[in-house]
Amino acid sequence: MHVNGTHYRTVWPGEEPGVIRIIDQRKLPFAFEIEDLRSVDEVASAIRDMHVRGAGCIGATAGYGMYLAAMEASVADDFEAVLRRRAEQLIATRPTAVNLRWAVDRQLAAMAEVEWPGEKLDVAEATARAIADEDAAACRAIGEHGLELIRKLHEAKPDGEPIHILTHCNAGWLAFVDHGSATAPIYAAHAAGIPVHVWVDETRPRNQGARLTAWELGQEGVPHTVVADNVGGHLMQRGLVDLVITGTDRTTWTGDVANKIGTYLKALAARDNEVPFYVALPSSTFDWEIEDGVAGIPIEERGGEEVSHLAGLHESGEETEVRLVPEGSRTANYAFDVTPARLVSGLITERGICKAHRDSIAVMFPECVASR
Amino acid sequence: MHVNGTHYRTVWPGEEPGVIRIIDQRKLPFAFEIEDLRSVDEVASAIRDMHVRGAGCIGATAGYGMYLAAMEASVADDFEAVLRRRAEQLIATRPTAVNLRWAVDRQLAAMAEVEWPGEKLDVAEATARAIADEDAAACRAIGEHGLELIRKLHEAKPDGEPIHILTHCNAGWLAFVDHGSATAPIYAAHAAGIPVHVWVDETRPRNQGARLTAWELGQEGVPHTVVADNVGGHLMQRGLVDLVITGTDRTTWTGDVANKIGTYLKALAARDNEVPFYVALPSSTFDWEIEDGVAGIPIEERGGEEVSHLAGLHESGEETEVRLVPEGSRTANYAFDVTPARLVSGLITERGICKAHRDSIAVMFPECVASR
Repeated sequence: MHVNGTHYRTVWPGEEPGVIRIIDQRKLPFAFEIEDLRSVDEVASAIRDMHVRGAGCIGATAGYGMYLAAMEASVADDFEAVLRRRAEQLIATRPTAVNLRWAVDRQLAAMAEVEWPGEKLDVAEATARAIADEDAAACRAIGEHGLELIRKLHEAKPDGEPIHILTHCNAGWLAFVDHGSATAPIYAAHAAGIPVHVWVDETRPRNQGARLTAWELGQEGVPHTVVADNVGGHLMQRGLVDLVITGTDRTTWTGDVANKIGTYLKALAARDNEVPFYVALPSSTFDWEIEDGVAGIPIEERGGEEVSHLAGLHESGEETEVRLVPEGSRTANYAFDVTPARLVSGLITERGICKAHRDSIAVMFPECVASR
Repeated sequence: MHVNGTHYRTVWPGEEPGVIRIIDQRKLPFAFEIEDLRSVDEVASAIRDMHVRGAGCIGATAGYGMYLAAMEASVADDFEAVLRRRAEQLIATRPTAVNLRWAVDRQLAAMAEVEWPGEKLDVAEATARAIADEDAAACRAIGEHGLELIRKLHEAKPDGEPIHILTHCNAGWLAFVDHGSATAPIYAAHAAGIPVHVWVDETRPRNQGARLTAWELGQEGVPHTVVADNVGGHLMQRGLVDLVITGTDRTTWTGDVANKIGTYLKALAARDNEVPFYVALPSSTFDWEIEDGVAGIPIEERGGEEVSHLAGLHESGEETEVRLVPEGSRTANYAFDVTPARLVSGLITERGICKAHRDSIAVMFPECVASR
């Protein structure tokens, strides 16, 4: 999508071999900075410390990270040992999003198909590009399927009234390679001339909604309003939300959805007020192993300082951190929660929209279910 | 309750006549400052700009404000005209909390009972003290009734394990004259030697949980953990919450509960996970007129800058404000929401615990229902 009118992806290969370029998302929306990553260590840090974040984006970045791993391995004594160690290092950076492991495993499998380090390196580069391109293509397809959903809601509304869509966290293009998952239908509707207005959940503690979603919607000219995470229930109760669309970091083959902490609360409010609650995801986000998401999906606990402290733009123009809680008060920081399938109206995937139910998912992705 | 070991109320008469003293709650937890209010204008500003906040506290402050109004009226040409104007001014400061109007109306009714300005002034002073004393006594009684609830939960738990209580916003002693509503049972349990641990919702956008509840629990030595507002659903899903207790700014005679924005979301999560959800209130918080809380209770909309900007303690030791959203992004700031009675397990009042249902409330407060 666009930054100051120029098209960008979130991660792409630099012109120089062995350089991966990313948008340093920690700096947004107050500064737009591109960062060069030149080693697997730098890629791992960028994922762990959230220079890049979001299911598809960290998958694609890890894919490129494996290309850097292959470069390193190709000049080492033991290609396989280096590759394995680097793969483990990348997988360990973030525990909840399944795309990370999926991308690393795909690279390992692709490289295992060929014999010589030089070939493996070529395969790794091509696979990294393919992962990124497929992510962008999947998100574009999600946009097209989700557009039909928005179009139907719009046709049922009085002329000219916008469709109000609530989203949580950032499942925008910044969370993928391009287009985004939850935002793809919004961008598609906006491009198709359907008036949309987005309620952007702030998304404490890291404020990905207030910082990233608001910024990217603004860059694309999509009307939006940032609200505290507490507000969604009230908005739905008052009929001010037509549709909720969120992303997901991992969705079980039974339809349970792990996403940014607080998503479950919005799903409960949507059900209580009969507001459709959709989750948008490329199929790389499915976990084909875990049956019970609440019991089975590991939930990342991050440092308490993300709750006790918050950074924003000071009037001096410097991004400045302030303390929010009294000295001596503990904080806890669960990064995700799991929304049970029963609360999800549907899943918007690159192949179309299906129910958040094992049977419906199996019909949409028969080959994945068969390979379990 | 205690501040650095010394007992305080939130509002009290100064030694000098015509001076009301409050704790300036905007400065907490980073500075403890007492402010003198010397006119109705200053009282109105203190309520509107949230130097004091919380249902009982603004009621008691308005009660004292009416005493200052009586002082002003007693030296004016037309006592009644001044009093009426000042009453309207105070009522207009905050729209949602019913205690404010209740306290002002009580003062007007009390003063109407006597004839001469001097008598009216004496009555106003006595009534202001009575409103504050009764608020403190009601909160103490709420604590005793709520203690029995916590005691039962504790008896059902393995020995030594704390009772985990989640609360939202600040319905602590800072929100009343003393003890608090939601916190009164917690303080009573802590004093009775029952181990309690409080999950403190941060409560965006004004962070009354992170700032005020955490601070007052810390001052009383009650174990607590501050979490983002998004976290409660996950905690309940994982069995980490035994009980939710919140306060309320207005509760209908049918049991619908207006409270700080986001309360409704926690009530939904409590029901989904069969966690008891109690609301603590002195009966001054009941609205004996409105039948349907969702349709009828006015919801205050505050300035969007409370969402777009946030202040905290900078490492320099200065409280510092930072911007959280991109330039050009709108914000909306609904301050309260309404939790329907069907989601409320019970109401903890100064007379005991009743169901959040018109019949049960009518049995507990027959004279109030009769006077409707």
